[in-house]
Amino acid sequence: MDKILRIDVGAEGGPKATAVPVGEYAGLGGRALTSAIVLKEVPPLCHPLGGENKLVIAPGLLSGTAGAQTGRISVGCKSPLTGGIKESNSGGQPSQVLAKLGYGAIVLEGRPKGDDLYKIFINKDGVKITKDNSLKMLPNYDVVEKMKKEYGDKICCISIGPAGEMKMGAATIAFTDMELRPTRHAGRGGVGAVMGSKNIKVIVLDATGMPVRAPKDPDKFQDANKRFVDGLKKHPVTGQGLPAYGTNILTNILNEVGGYPTYNFRQGRFDGAAKISGETQADTETKRGANPTHGCHRGCVIQCSGTYNDKDGHYLTKQPEYETVWAHGGNCGISDLDKIAMMDFLDDNYGIDTIEMGATIAVAMEAGLAPFGDADAAIKMIHEVGKGTDRGRILGNGAGMTGKAFGVERVPVVKNQAMPAYDPRAVQGIGVTYATSPMGADHTAGYAVTANVLKVGGDVNALKPEGQVELSRNLQIATAAIDSTGMCLFIAFAVLDQPDTFQALLDMLNSFYGLNLTGDSVTELGKKILKMERDFNTRAGFTPQHDRLPSYFKTEKFAPHNVTFAVKDEELDKVFNW
Amino acid sequence: MDKILRIDVGAEGGPKATAVPVGEYAGLGGRALTSAIVLKEVPPLCHPLGGENKLVIAPGLLSGTAGAQTGRISVGCKSPLTGGIKESNSGGQPSQVLAKLGYGAIVLEGRPKGDDLYKIFINKDGVKITKDNSLKMLPNYDVVEKMKKEYGDKICCISIGPAGEMKMGAATIAFTDMELRPTRHAGRGGVGAVMGSKNIKVIVLDATGMPVRAPKDPDKFQDANKRFVDGLKKHPVTGQGLPAYGTNILTNILNEVGGYPTYNFRQGRFDGAAKISGETQADTETKRGANPTHGCHRGCVIQCSGTYNDKDGHYLTKQPEYETVWAHGGNCGISDLDKIAMMDFLDDNYGIDTIEMGATIAVAMEAGLAPFGDADAAIKMIHEVGKGTDRGRILGNGAGMTGKAFGVERVPVVKNQAMPAYDPRAVQGIGVTYATSPMGADHTAGYAVTANVLKVGGDVNALKPEGQVELSRNLQIATAAIDSTGMCLFIAFAVLDQPDTFQALLDMLNSFYGLNLTGDSVTELGKKILKMERDFNTRAGFTPQHDRLPSYFKTEKFAPHNVTFAVKDEELDKVFNW
Repeated sequence: MDKILRIDVGAEGGPKATAVPVGEYAGLGGRALTSAIVLKEVPPLCHPLGGENKLVIAPGLLSGTAGAQTGRISVGCKSPLTGGIKESNSGGQPSQVLAKLGYGAIVLEGRPKGDDLYKIFINKDGVKITKDNSLKMLPNYDVVEKMKKEYGDKICCISIGPAGEMKMGAATIAFTDMELRPTRHAGRGGVGAVMGSKNIKVIVLDATGMPVRAPKDPDKFQDANKRFVDGLKKHPVTGQGLPAYGTNILTNILNEVGGYPTYNFRQGRFDGAAKISGETQADTETKRGANPTHGCHRGCVIQCSGTYNDKDGHYLTKQPEYETVWAHGGNCGISDLDKIAMMDFLDDNYGIDTIEMGATIAVAMEAGLAPFGDADAAIKMIHEVGKGTDRGRILGNGAGMTGKAFGVERVPVVKNQAMPAYDPRAVQGIGVTYATSPMGADHTAGYAVTANVLKVGGDVNALKPEGQVELSRNLQIATAAIDSTGMCLFIAFAVLDQPDTFQALLDMLNSFYGLNLTGDSVTELGKKILKMERDFNTRAGFTPQHDRLPSYFKTEKFAPHNVTFAVKDEELDKVFNW
Repeated sequence: MDKILRIDVGAEGGPKATAVPVGEYAGLGGRALTSAIVLKEVPPLCHPLGGENKLVIAPGLLSGTAGAQTGRISVGCKSPLTGGIKESNSGGQPSQVLAKLGYGAIVLEGRPKGDDLYKIFINKDGVKITKDNSLKMLPNYDVVEKMKKEYGDKICCISIGPAGEMKMGAATIAFTDMELRPTRHAGRGGVGAVMGSKNIKVIVLDATGMPVRAPKDPDKFQDANKRFVDGLKKHPVTGQGLPAYGTNILTNILNEVGGYPTYNFRQGRFDGAAKISGETQADTETKRGANPTHGCHRGCVIQCSGTYNDKDGHYLTKQPEYETVWAHGGNCGISDLDKIAMMDFLDDNYGIDTIEMGATIAVAMEAGLAPFGDADAAIKMIHEVGKGTDRGRILGNGAGMTGKAFGVERVPVVKNQAMPAYDPRAVQGIGVTYATSPMGADHTAGYAVTANVLKVGGDVNALKPEGQVELSRNLQIATAAIDSTGMCLFIAFAVLDQPDTFQALLDMLNSFYGLNLTGDSVTELGKKILKMERDFNTRAGFTPQHDRLPSYFKTEKFAPHNVTFAVKDEELDKVFNW
């Protein structure tokens, strides 16, 4: 992790890789590193698809170690969707593998000279870049199959589907899971379009022959990791709820509290919720011989992932996440779990963000392109995106463009990025995060659902404005720091509630690197990251006026609680006053 | 002109009109009035197509008088294209007629209760609003024919075509000319979409029985007007060039100086320029029995308008303006005048901004949707917009959306509005105006082509950055003031060069209203308007970062002079430091 692999895609004769020392970026990982590089090296007013933008792919500080939950990876760039800085985060195998290979980051930079498409293979012996136009417009599953044939099954892949090649605002970058399936995605903000603009289709990694990264103090690290794992296992969310039902355990919970955005954010409860809940999903998976309790990367002990089989017992897709089930489900009035799973597969295969796609379909339904609840029409829309039809070009660029193209006013976006599965009127803390995160509407940036709904890490009334700014602020700071460790964000449930688990996390970092970090250090790191990100955005033209929800959230009452978003603008402007 | 007609489109039972005193807006006309109302009454962060936006249609201070050139009208709102304040200006008859009817402005406000479409008839007896769904999706020429049948031929019309009903970002509002044809348009910024969002298809005006507006001092006014007209007639641009060839006289001039954006702003000279020049166009018109010297409204002495007949001598469209000929011509590599004229007709009929449409077609050609030079493909694209196909939804929302949808980087927009017919690298003064005008890229906002190319009102080297900021500043101030008088902007040629013509203009205003305006008063008015507009934009989230050209204009050299845009960012930020 002491070098950065810079790949100049505009070099004479095709992309050229150079490994350089981390230098000034030493000590940074994950989001801290991607945001630092983007802030320093990308002109804030550049075109996101132009030669001045860079795509940074960085494992976290603890990735590639024997520590639990350390398989998350950060992807940074100027976002084609928001126009601001982006860190999009994914699970899967590549984080561990890239870290073991010794790279703190891969940076794709420059402007390609032509239209040729390239693949990049990285192993212990170095980097090989090959022109391969046979990959053009291949969906992600096919790309990975092809790479397996060429490079064997010890690899993992980072790839884009057709949406990325078409440079769509909802295009993802796929990361393969333990079964070498492209099921984990850096989904938000169109990072796949930036990879597409660099004409790189796939990065294949093979860490064969490379050891697990060694801590400075192996014994202390092992001890800290054990305490950390114990902490995760004893917390009800990370030890029971998530393993049993995955993230989709949230469907019943959010529906119950009336915060489940239904029919394009029209109401907070969905009649069909029980049919698509995590409980129903896990039950269906088990009956069909799939696995509802599974990790997305080696070293995961939470096991919130899973697999989903079709009616005949054949693998259809990974276990769809809560956000995916909601986006294609309740938000579109759809309650058919098999069709939702099919959409999850199609999104993964074409390389489309499931949240943006579902929110977009709902806006298209509001525009009258299909009735709410029409799952077949929704599936057809995803195929339009994958094929790049004219309609697909609109939908593939997200809810914002779809609203503009069809003259729809009710478009649930902030900074042009679609809101996830929590209505900001019924879960006002998440509304503060949506409004103010430098990332655009993003639940993971400061998951106030914790104290608002789950009563983890505090208890703040979800329906009232009081206390939400402080809640969101603290979570945004903590999240930015966690996103830099390579740790899965779900550790936050245990870390927020259990001081000894938080201490175990610090001890892991300290024993690995020989540091003396405290809780305050973590807070300082989080603040530093947010400051960098907001600095970039300010220079890209963002103002407090961009830290706002669309105005209808302030006026349109949301059933069943008949609430509007009540956090005042001047309060939103205090989120980053620390 | 002492009352404002407010039409609440959300009233129970359909739109309801109320005439109210001008009150606090007294003394303002045209752009000063539209911008004042928008600043005061429209929340800057509202959705442009929502109930909080307002559409303000205002004749100028001297409209409806016997003064020459006073037939311009201003349309104001929050722009669906730029997201900022918009004043879009048009010729035609309605300005004079609305002023004679005594209205300082019509304001469409509120949110319609349903999908019904309405027409509004205004005459000396009052206002009648009628539901008329038979008008749905009618193109402008058909709307006007229908209105003639219903209300007779003493009327004039303000209408939207299908693009406005579909709420497209390039949708115009059409104003009929002296022959009751919908050929004059408030083209820029999607004002037609805002009218469409209010469910108003057409406003029919009839001033029969209303006198010409009477000056306070009729003798002085008549004398001043005579001196003013004499001044216009003796200036070579307004007295000779424009009458003979119309605005399209500029094709040869801009091509000659190498500032004619060709093939989507790739180079500054077009091989086919001679085939589409104003000279060729006027010659063609004359041969076919059309009229190259004609006014767009009664009282015009410049007569830069005209008519264009097809090969069989039948009326096809008005004489296409320079910007239109360029947008659909050289910028798309098209040199067939008849096909360009057909596109002009289609744009007018569907209600689409010719500048935005042509710039959009060129971006689509850059995306590979059709080869440059393919006029039939370009015509087909306009029909797609008019029909509202999926492709039409993209194209009808302008160059910005088209670039995003098809992943094109070279998109010549500022604040998401397409640049007109002068490349900012070869005419750097107009580049300053494009970058900094609160309107987005707009040549009319500060027409630095004067001193840069035509050597009117000074002489500033077009290829160098020096002096451009001051030039653009002074022109933006003067323009804002002129746009408030109802005067055609082309008076500026004579007013800039001839102090006595400027004095005559002041004398017209003073004798009409009993005022004592000086040159300084005009400057103050212009500054006041720009300040209001920038104030709105700031509160809508605009920053200095939005006052920039796309970055490729700073790096991509423009032939034949191989220049880049060289005005520094910090210089651009000084435009409004007065």
